Order: sequence, then structure tokens, then C-alpha cells
Amino acid sequence: MTNQELMQEDLKHIFHPCSQMKDHEKLPLIPIKKGKGSYIYDYDGNEYLDCISSWWVNIFGHSNAYINTKINEQLQELEHVIFAGFTHKPAVDLAKRLIALTPEPLQKIFFADNGSSAIEISLKMSFQYFKNKGQSRPLFVSLENSYHGETLGALAVSDTGLYKDIYTDILIKTIQAKSPSLVDEDEAIEDMRRVLTQHKNEVCSVVIEPLIQCAGSMKMYDASYIKKLRTLCDEFGVFLIADEIAVGFGRTGTLFAIEQAEISPDFLCLSKGITGGYMPLSVVLFTDDIYNAFYCDYNEGKSFLDSHSYTGNTLACSVANAVLDIFEKDNILENNQKKITFIKEQTQKFKTLSCVAEVRQRGMVCAIELQGFDTTRRVGLEIFQKALKEGVYIRPLGNIIYFMPPYVFTDAQLKKMIDVTYGIVKSL
Amino acid sequence: MTNQELMQEDLKHIFHPCSQMKDHEKLPLIPIKKGKGSYIYDYDGNEYLDCISSWWVNIFGHSNAYINTKINEQLQELEHVIFAGFTHKPAVDLAKRLIALTPEPLQKIFFADNGSSAIEISLKMSFQYFKNKGQSRPLFVSLENSYHGETLGALAVSDTGLYKDIYTDILIKTIQAKSPSLVDEDEAIEDMRRVLTQHKNEVCSVVIEPLIQCAGSMKMYDASYIKKLRTLCDEFGVFLIADEIAVGFGRTGTLFAIEQAEISPDFLCLSKGITGGYMPLSVVLFTDDIYNAFYCDYNEGKSFLDSHSYTGNTLACSVANAVLDIFEKDNILENNQKKITFIKEQTQKFKTLSCVAEVRQRGMVCAIELQGFDTTRRVGLEIFQKALKEGVYIRPLGNIIYFMPPYVFTDAQLKKMIDVTYGIVKSL
Repeated sequence: MTNQELMQEDLKHIFHPCSQMKDHEKLPLIPIKKGKGSYIYDYDGNEYLDCISSWWVNIFGHSNAYINTKINEQLQELEHVIFAGFTHKPAVDLAKRLIALTPEPLQKIFFADNGSSAIEISLKMSFQYFKNKGQSRPLFVSLENSYHGETLGALAVSDTGLYKDIYTDILIKTIQAKSPSLVDEDEAIEDMRRVLTQHKNEVCSVVIEPLIQCAGSMKMYDASYIKKLRTLCDEFGVFLIADEIAVGFGRTGTLFAIEQAEISPDFLCLSKGITGGYMPLSVVLFTDDIYNAFYCDYNEGKSFLDSHSYTGNTLACSVANAVLDIFEKDNILENNQKKITFIKEQTQKFKTLSCVAEVRQRGMVCAIELQGFDTTRRVGLEIFQKALKEGVYIRPLGNIIYFMPPYVFTDAQLKKMIDVTYGIVKSL
Repeated sequence: MTNQELMQEDLKHIFHPCSQMKDHEKLPLIPIKKGKGSYIYDYDGNEYLDCISSWWVNIFGHSNAYINTKINEQLQELEHVIFAGFTHKPAVDLAKRLIALTPEPLQKIFFADNGSSAIEISLKMSFQYFKNKGQSRPLFVSLENSYHGETLGALAVSDTGLYKDIYTDILIKTIQAKSPSLVDEDEAIEDMRRVLTQHKNEVCSVVIEPLIQCAGSMKMYDASYIKKLRTLCDEFGVFLIADEIAVGFGRTGTLFAIEQAEISPDFLCLSKGITGGYMPLSVVLFTDDIYNAFYCDYNEGKSFLDSHSYTGNTLACSVANAVLDIFEKDNILENNQKKITFIKEQTQKFKTLSCVAEVRQRGMVCAIELQGFDTTRRVGLEIFQKALKEGVYIRPLGNIIYFMPPYVFTDAQLKKMIDVTYGIVKSL
């Protein structure tokens, strides 16, 4: 089997996500045969450093021996069971551990399977909370340049035009306030105050991606904004939803980004890294107050009846427990601090290039924003192709190059990722 | 570890899907330790026949040896890789096999992870198809009594008030036509004609659950309606979306329910049984014509940019291939015919009971509708509890008891499932 053979078979039938398939008339689609640690390998014997963690999900490398063993153990016992009326130890353990690891006000958890569904659950639950108390508050507020997922509810609170604009006619109305990643923090807070004042008692929740708007060109902002936003949400009596689907599980340096703001959201949405890049799982954590608003006699009809078939999937919960084991036993967060410093040092040289507008970093995520290229040139695609030839897999977002490697990258691998990219950008 | 201990730990933190948690003050939540074949086992040593396939997902039994082996093999190679720009053999194989198994017009496939997301993809794609051709057709039509999922788009095309009504203020407008499961088939078709005439050029797609509206009280209808609906959709130039998330993979007797209508939908959504109850995966199959409407130069901006992190998950695709292997090597569909006949024969006796309004069956799904009970009595819950004490796990939908067992049930197990339930219903 060769790359070419498998690619031809693929292109007969598969429409790939987030892709213009016509691009593949010129751009090879690469069939991956094997993954191990930091590398993925194709059918022609090439190896690639997976510098974006296979779309931000992988944190402990491909085909991780410890996670594989844990899956095997779980397979012998139970792969999955309905999660209504029944439960299982992997879910109970995971719930306990996540609640211990997140801010104290978050005491309850709801399971789902993908990130978009976690967002939808937090939106529905925040809306229904008020409904259960006799109020209709049909408005959701998010930030400009935000991205929260693909299902119509998650898309409605997103603001990245590339994904959203074409669907305007089939989306509910939501409001976007100015983002601290694009304007001054105080200006952003004042804009949020304006929105909440103008729509007093109509807004049920505000949803943000703490510290990094990942799909929104990896734009970053400071924890101080989140602190101020928490105060503002309390003042207006609206919920704060933290979407840590992309930034959770150590990406920003701390286990969760909100820790840096020293606050607790009312809802915390987690996915991606939760299974170390193995399989879909998402969870929403929330407060006792929210839980209690749904707790009543059945016939009052106030429960939260959301469910997905694989809610609380046993295998996925086992994997998530294995991921938390690795964080503990391998002292990941502390070790990552050295990698974060190393990335910072090594990427400084990009600042000397005239085509580089900004180098920004939050923890294990580093973005290099280019300038001076016409969008029709698709310079990101050009860089992607050149880097791939040198065994480095990056996937620029337009003119933004970013690194978001798994935590198993060695210094030598980090250096290769950065140096190969630097050489290409320098030669543009 | 006992049931009681694990239940107490669970109830401190977990909000279970589709549940009023207050019920668990009286109703034990059951921790499952192990699953094997048709049975699930709790921590107190009780065993239960899983007569609803752990919420309609399991088809070849718990902890299936063949599937376990295939997962193990896959874990050694590759657990997951980004599915944009890359591909892998399990996805290519699965695509080829599903396309060979479904009607000939369905030639393309898009991967997602849960059923709701598959529905959202078919809605978004059907809307964008017309948008890409310069038309805005923002209306979706579905059937009364339908259920298509929990995310806001999927919920908007659903009609089961229990799940939907409270969210009316945050749902887009959609239209429900009369359902052939509730009115005469010709009346339903005429109502659909009325809707499509009234909203000519505004409707992009009609979405149905072929043959069984599962969450809608397991109401059933005939394939002839689907045949007529196909003709009507063609007449009005709107897409037909078949939601076979619950009924696909042999539930109705044929591999897919639409086969019985001898037509092809424009979109076919699959999930649940696709992984034999192991883990989340969903796919949407569609026509070349639809694919081509998105195929153009990148800068035209007409692509379908949907993605979930775990789109095309390698492990899940491997499991799905193992499921298709079992269908072939164990001659499942033919063997199920005997089980279908057996269920039919054994459930006839329910018709003699005055509290039974109807016994209906489509393939491996059989529903018994009760009558004469006040809804506040929650007779379904009463039956669930009594059956559980006899080792039979069923989960009535209100006053509807239904059986949807995995295909590994033996005749003796089918008989126990039916006889225990009969005994309880008779004694009500």
C-alpha cells in the first residue's frame, strides 16, 4: 500500500472536515499508517512531528503505552452502558477527580461526547435555569472573534465569519461584545457592561474562551479580563461559561486557564485533551445552585432531559482517568514549565523578521502572526507544505502560524519544530 | 465495593442524562461493574438482561471478543490523527464499505462523532447547498412526533415536547408535517404537500426517521409513506434526509430501514449501532450532486468547513469495521429473521390483556402500548422496577414498553425478556 493508492481510494468517497476538497487536486492527502509519541508516519515511509497535537487533542503522544494498557483492562470488563439509571466506576472516579481539580464552586458534572455538545448543554442549562424560575432569558452573549463549535447553537455564539456567516439565516440571534484580544481590556469590559445593561434580564449567560481564542487566529488576552468579567456577570446576575475545550488540560501552563484568573465560572466545558487525543468525550461542570434548579418532583417537568447515546461512555471515561494518572505520576505541569520557557527563548528570533507582526505565547501555545502577504497567496498553505517536506507538521490558520505540541515533545523536537519553521518563514 | 457505596459517590456529583435526579432518592442508581454478551452485572452480584441494548446502541453484546481484539490491534498502530489533510485506512475502508451497503446514489461520506452532530451536518449541508447556488432556503421540515437529537439545530427539527418545549425561545423556526405514524399515510402525504406548496422555495430539506419514531413512543409506519415522500421531495426539489441513527444497522430487519422503501434519500445519517455500542461515531452519506456543490476553488468560499476534533476518529472507525465484519461473517441479518419471528409469536399474548392498546413491531423492535393508566402513576417506572428485580432491564417510554435487544440474545433470553414483562403487565 502506498500513499498514492490510499489517497485515491479516499478521494473517491470522503469529504474531509474543514477542507476544500478541490485543493487535493494539487495538495496530496496524506494517509497515516502509524503514530508513536511525537510522530506520525505515512505509507511511503515519511515521518512527521505532530506539532499541533492532531488538532489540539493529543497531549501524551500517539499510541501511548499507559493509555493503551488502561483501555485493554477496561475492555475486559465493560465497554459501555446506558448512563440513565445506571452508572459505572470510571465515570464516578472521573467526576470526583475533575471536581477536585477545578474551582470549589464547581460541584456537579454532566457528561457528553463532543465539544460542541458540551457548549450546547451549557447554553441550554443556563437558559432553562431561568425558565425553571419563571423567567425567559433567551439571549446568549459571547466575544467577538470567538469560536465555540459547529452545531447550530454553538455556531450561533461563535463569531468567526469563515465558519458562521453563510449560516446566518438559520441561526438564533446572539450578541457579541468586544474581545480583549482585539481591543484594550477595559474597553472590552465597558462594552460588555453596555451589552448587559442594554439587555438586562434578557441575557442568561456569557460564554468565553479563557486566555486564547484558538480558532480566532490564536488571539490571546490576559487573565485580568476574566477576573473583571466574573465581577460583571455577578453584578448583572448572569452565568459565566468558560469554554476550555481547546485550552484545558495544561495548554496555557496551568491545568485550566481560569486558574490564572483565580475565579470560578458557573459552567466549565471540557473536551479534546480530556482523552489525550484518543476518542470523543466532553463534560460540563457547574455549581450546586444550578443543579438544584433542576432538582424537584418529576411531575413538575423541570429536569434537564438532554442525552446523547454515548453520554458517560465507559471506555472514554477510563481513558480520561488514565490521562489524569499521567498528569500526576509524570509531574506534567511542572515539567511543562521548562518546555514553555524553552519555546519562548527559541521563538524570539521570529521577532527579527520583517514579515512577522507578532509572536505571542500562553503556556504551551505559541503563535506567530505574519504580515504583508496577500490573502489570495495563501502563505499559510505554502508554509505547511514546505514544513511537511522537512518532517514538521504545522497547520497555519491563514497568516497565523502556531505551535501546540503534545507534552511529550523533547527539547530537540521542539527545536526542530521551531527551527524548520523559522527557516521557511525567513525564506519567504 | 457495593452498589450502595458507588451510588452514594455518584450522587454527590453526577447529573445523569434524561433523568430527574430527585427520583434517585427512592430509585436506586445501579453501578455496573461488568458487561458480557447479553448481560450487565452490578456490584451486588445481580445480573440483568440488557433488553434495550444500553439505549439502542449495543448490537453484538457487551465486551465482544472480536471487537476487543480489533481495538487492541488498532491501538498498537494509531489511535487517532487529524482528519483534515490526512486520512487513515480504517476510515477509507469504512467509507468504501458503507457506500457499497447503501443505495447507489449515496457516494460521498462526511464523518462526525455523535448522532446530533450528524443531523446538524445534514441540515447545514442541505441549507448551504442552495446558498452556494445563490438561494436562501432557511426552512427545515420534519414530522410531528419526531426526535432528531439534543443540540439546538437537531432539537429544532424535533417535535417531542418533553425534550423541546422548554427551549422554544432559543430555537429557530421549523415546520412539522403530519406523521404517518399518527394519521393515515395519505393524509400525512397530503399535509406534506400542503407544507411544501405553502413554503415553495423556502424549504431546503425534509428530515424523517424511517419506519420508527423511536423516541416518539416507538410509533411506527410503513415503507410506502417513504416511497411517496421521496416522489414528493423530487417534485418540489427539496432534499430528503433519512435519520437512521436509531433504526440503522439491522434494527428494522434490513440493514437500513430505507431499503424497505426501495428508494434513496439525499442524506443518510448513521450512528449508535455503527460502533456496536462501544463508542461515539456518526457519519452522513450523501450524493455526488451535493458534494459537487461545495467543490470549487478555495477562494470562492463555498466549502463545507464543519469539523469536530475527533471527526473520523481512527479507533471508532476500526470498531465500525469490526461491526461490519461481524454482520458478514456471522450472517446476522438472516439469523435475525428467526429472532424477529420468535419475538412476534411470543408477544402475541399481550394482545389478550385489556390494559394493552397495541402491540407493534418492525424487525428487532417491538413496542407494547398500554392504556387506562393515569400518567401521574408512572406505570412505566413501576414496570421497570419490577422487571429489574427479575433480572430483566427494560426502560419504558411513559406508557410504552419496548424491546430492542442486541442481536446476540438467544431464544431463551428473548423468551425470558418477554415472559417476565408479560407477567408484570398482567398483574398490574
